[in-house]
Amino acid sequence: MSKAAVYKGNKTIEVVEKENQPLKAEEVRLDVAYCGICGTDRHAYHGVMDGRIGTEAVIGHEMSGVITECGTAVTDYKVGDVVVVRPLDWCGECPTCKRGFTHICENLNFIGLDSEGAFQSSWNVHQRILHRVPEGVSLKDAALVEPLAVACHDVRRSGAASGDFALIIGGGPIGILIAQVLKSKGVDFVLSEVNETRLSIAESMGIKTLNPLKDDIPASLKEMNNGSLADVVFEVSASQPGALSMSAFARPRGKIVLVGIFGSNPEVCLKDFFWKELELLGARVYAGEDFDEALQILNSDDFPAETVISKVYPLEEMEKAFRDLDEDLSVMKILVQCGDLK
Amino acid sequence: MSKAAVYKGNKTIEVVEKENQPLKAEEVRLDVAYCGICGTDRHAYHGVMDGRIGTEAVIGHEMSGVITECGTAVTDYKVGDVVVVRPLDWCGECPTCKRGFTHICENLNFIGLDSEGAFQSSWNVHQRILHRVPEGVSLKDAALVEPLAVACHDVRRSGAASGDFALIIGGGPIGILIAQVLKSKGVDFVLSEVNETRLSIAESMGIKTLNPLKDDIPASLKEMNNGSLADVVFEVSASQPGALSMSAFARPRGKIVLVGIFGSNPEVCLKDFFWKELELLGARVYAGEDFDEALQILNSDDFPAETVISKVYPLEEMEKAFRDLDEDLSVMKILVQCGDLK
Repeated sequence: MSKAAVYKGNKTIEVVEKENQPLKAEEVRLDVAYCGICGTDRHAYHGVMDGRIGTEAVIGHEMSGVITECGTAVTDYKVGDVVVVRPLDWCGECPTCKRGFTHICENLNFIGLDSEGAFQSSWNVHQRILHRVPEGVSLKDAALVEPLAVACHDVRRSGAASGDFALIIGGGPIGILIAQVLKSKGVDFVLSEVNETRLSIAESMGIKTLNPLKDDIPASLKEMNNGSLADVVFEVSASQPGALSMSAFARPRGKIVLVGIFGSNPEVCLKDFFWKELELLGARVYAGEDFDEALQILNSDDFPAETVISKVYPLEEMEKAFRDLDEDLSVMKILVQCGDLK
Repeated sequence: MSKAAVYKGNKTIEVVEKENQPLKAEEVRLDVAYCGICGTDRHAYHGVMDGRIGTEAVIGHEMSGVITECGTAVTDYKVGDVVVVRPLDWCGECPTCKRGFTHICENLNFIGLDSEGAFQSSWNVHQRILHRVPEGVSLKDAALVEPLAVACHDVRRSGAASGDFALIIGGGPIGILIAQVLKSKGVDFVLSEVNETRLSIAESMGIKTLNPLKDDIPASLKEMNNGSLADVVFEVSASQPGALSMSAFARPRGKIVLVGIFGSNPEVCLKDFFWKELELLGARVYAGEDFDEALQILNSDDFPAETVISKVYPLEEMEKAFRDLDEDLSVMKILVQCGDLK
């Protein structure tokens, strides 16, 4: 028997006892230690994804855990291994998989939304999506691997390297994590955000910031980047001002990585794209190498996990965690402790 | 003395006698043979560019001609050479020039708009922007080099190669020329257009077409491209439906080249860019190599210059040429004969 947090629709989560599932040959059974709450989980909690996930859903995909049992065909892992799960299940058969882009498979099952996720004490997953956690990374910090892998993917997609100057539009959790990845690569950058609380948090982490409501962004960028606007822009705000700013603040031939998920179609200044020959690159989830890079970054001394993880709640208080995130913009990342592991 | 067509504002063009300009050391004097009317020239004629060009402007930038005099520092050209002009004057000093992108110089002078153009019988231009016309290309066909170089630049920016399947949105002159460049590279493609006259012209040139008002574009693309949407999309329509279609009709990880010049900010489905990890590439004017490639294509037997060039008018009838273009969508490209050369 294990326990699971079940989304029942309309901002309601019930923690229930449940039977463990039978283990398939290529699966491992995990004791889930921690699982972070993602922006997408918040959309689910608010009911806007009921059509996709239903109202009997165990969600959660930013987890860490320990293997407690191995299926008969599991070869590279053993009981006791500390792992994280890359929550993607691809078909391998569609044209996109065949082109090598399995992470955006045309029939992708995003585990924790399209199938059962990690907000439960015991969880079965396929061995092909496991990543071993290095000894120097705690179970708590390891729960940050998934969002950090998103940031690694975003930065990799941009091709940003030392010598480039980047602008991050949006100072929420993913914006902050992109900042950490840029730091790890020696890329100079500034973060633009309108909320004072989020600006303070970023500044407490030593991040240079700009507030578009107060600062002259083009002038500031040119001062910081030898007379040019940003070489690389990360649009993480998913806002109409962000959609217009991304092209306005990029230098000619600059690159813009689209990270934010826009619920409706914003106005975009396509003339900027023409005039400056800009490049816009969509970035979604991650590949295996992004998980590997994220684990390396977490294993370094510099990563400010204590600042990123605002609070930890037990599984039983998940509803409260979601309310906290709704009410308090100073909350960056909340982890849920799903079982007894610490 | 020579003659020039002067734009006087509000759809008015006067042909006047004028003195030849003194020749600078690095300039050549040209007898202009033909000069095509571009979409931008039409904007100028309609008065929407008065702020940029004034109302005493000699415009025109799609020309062919013959050298009649060389400045004292001209080294690689001689009197009698048949040439075309790449109408760009860059500063060489701005960050964008220093990065090697002189064609989108931050202080670019687009010759024929920002300075005097080719709708005149005699014209002085700097030697660094001349391209020699091969013997097999007539003066008339050579006037197509500039728009064809735009199409070469668009296709080069896309990286499209044999094996790719492309969608061209918009069947005006540039869309038709992109089709010719794709043909020359062995790239399979289809052209999407709503206007029946333009569809007929494209079909008369052996181009496969789709009409989004009648055809199921995604289903057609998948049938033509082994189950995938377009590998490469060229947005040439500068229309709101085009701005939404460009992402809808591209396959995951597909590329979209933005060719159309949008006067206002359209709605764009940024979620498509995120979900399919699409890439949008702005493309503006051309580099020297695009002119060279365009001259090669014109020099091949396949190029349907007779279909692209709808009419030829003498300089004295330029106003009529502009009116024709406004009134008749079956008119693709009109050339103006600027002097006595044929």
